[in-house]
Amino acid sequence: MNESSALSDTLARLGAVIDGRRGGDPERSYVARLFHKGDDAILKKIGEEATEVVMAAKDCRHGLPASKLVGEVADLWFHCLVLLSHYELSPGDVVAELERREGLSGIEEKAMRKVLDRERSGD
Amino acid sequence: MNESSALSDTLARLGAVIDGRRGGDPERSYVARLFHKGDDAILKKIGEEATEVVMAAKDCRHGLPASKLVGEVADLWFHCLVLLSHYELSPGDVVAELERREGLSGIEEKAMRKVLDRERSGD
Amino acid sequence: MNESSALSDTLARLGAVIDGRRGGDPERSYVARLFHKGDDAILKKIGEEATEVVMAAKDCRHGLPASKLVGEVADLWFHCLVLLSHYELSPGDVVAELERREGLSGIEEKAMRKVLDRERSGD
Amino acid sequence: MNESSALSDTLARLGAVIDGRRGGDPERSYVARLFHKGDDAILKKIGEEATEVVMAAKDCRHGLPASKLVGEVADLWFHCLVLLSHYELSPGDVVAELERREGLSGIEEKAMRKVLDRERSGD
Repeated sequence: MNESSALSDTLARLGAVIDGRRGGDPERSYVARLFHKGDDAILKKIGEEATEVVMAAKDCRHGLPASKLVGEVADLWFHCLVLLSHYELSPGDVVAELERREGLSGIEEKAMRKVLDRERSGD
Repeated sequence: MNESSALSDTLARLGAVIDGRRGGDPERSYVARLFHKGDDAILKKIGEEATEVVMAAKDCRHGLPASKLVGEVADLWFHCLVLLSHYELSPGDVVAELERREGLSGIEEKAMRKVLDRERSGD
Repeated sequence: MNESSALSDTLARLGAVIDGRRGGDPERSYVARLFHKGDDAILKKIGEEATEVVMAAKDCRHGLPASKLVGEVADLWFHCLVLLSHYELSPGDVVAELERREGLSGIEEKAMRKVLDRERSGD
Repeated sequence: MNESSALSDTLARLGAVIDGRRGGDPERSYVARLFHKGDDAILKKIGEEATEVVMAAKDCRHGLPASKLVGEVADLWFHCLVLLSHYELSPGDVVAELERREGLSGIEEKAMRKVLDRERSGD
């Protein structure tokens, strides 16, 4: 199997592992503990991890290794997986949505060109 | 090819499409325009999209369909892909990091148990 | 009147000016336009402006003048005033809450000491 | 003294109390502990508290009392005061900036009208 199927296997497997933590012992698993605390706790983590992505990106611009940013994006995506699971959704739902948009992108580019042409002629 | 490898193709392919927008015409592509504006513009979008994920999750709890949340997580991940590309990173780097952690999780759970045991005995 | 009462006049006055924009013409006032768009638009701005505060703080640490941070905190507080007004609250409500906590802080410090003592003895 | 001078007194006094925590014992004061951890810890709190403001606003729309929102905005402003202090700035700097903009608002409204007129004629 090639690199890209390894990517997707990881996401799908991780989604399944996280699903398996629902109702688990909050004293033995970080994810079970998040589910136990409820969706507000998960949402706070989304806000916190997004902030850390922004901070890491700024640090990388000022000389830190890019690996710092990789770690923070991984944290953000991980907590997104927890959020999806909490709402009985899967990483596959998100990837399918991204795929759907990709199919529309040719059309979108054309639409954008029209908008911009109109803007310019309006000057 | 099974469903999950098709999913991963989307992420890898989307990363490559986004890479191809660097240096593109900011008047014809939304992504080229973001790259053209620079990393601050991309980071603002991360903060904005994370906020929209939080808002959508709250709305879903109060009765909106879960598809709204899927769309917002897709927006957030999409802008993460743009950010990664801007720093010459790929979705594969993030997924590899998630995989690395998954491999450690057995150890982490054990470590967590020890910490919690110690906390309890300290009461 | 001393400097600090002049400051407070600004906050109270700004709150009143913002209140006066509710129901105003969205084509003539930025604030009336935000109210017109509804609370989701205001909440997005909170997320966006908080992100810009974080970005500005990082930039200041790397050499930008601190005035950049002042401007971003002002933007964040301004949009908080709009949010408060939308929920028929005032800056005075927030400051009263801060004052209430300040009055409790002696007690809180003592409580914290106890917690920390217990933690240490648990090692 | 009227209500509004009480507002500003509180903000200025709180700023001074916070300034006094710099270099304090991180085991005895929450604020001293934040300063001790450094600016990244303070910035994470900004992101976290902004997220909690958004969550509270959504909850209030769905029936929670508005006092919940007041508490979260107070938390956000409080951590902004800590951030300002860390960069040797004061709440007065932010209020002065808000005041400066208030003075410009008449001009801004006029400018906005022009922009909108031009947009409309461009249709």
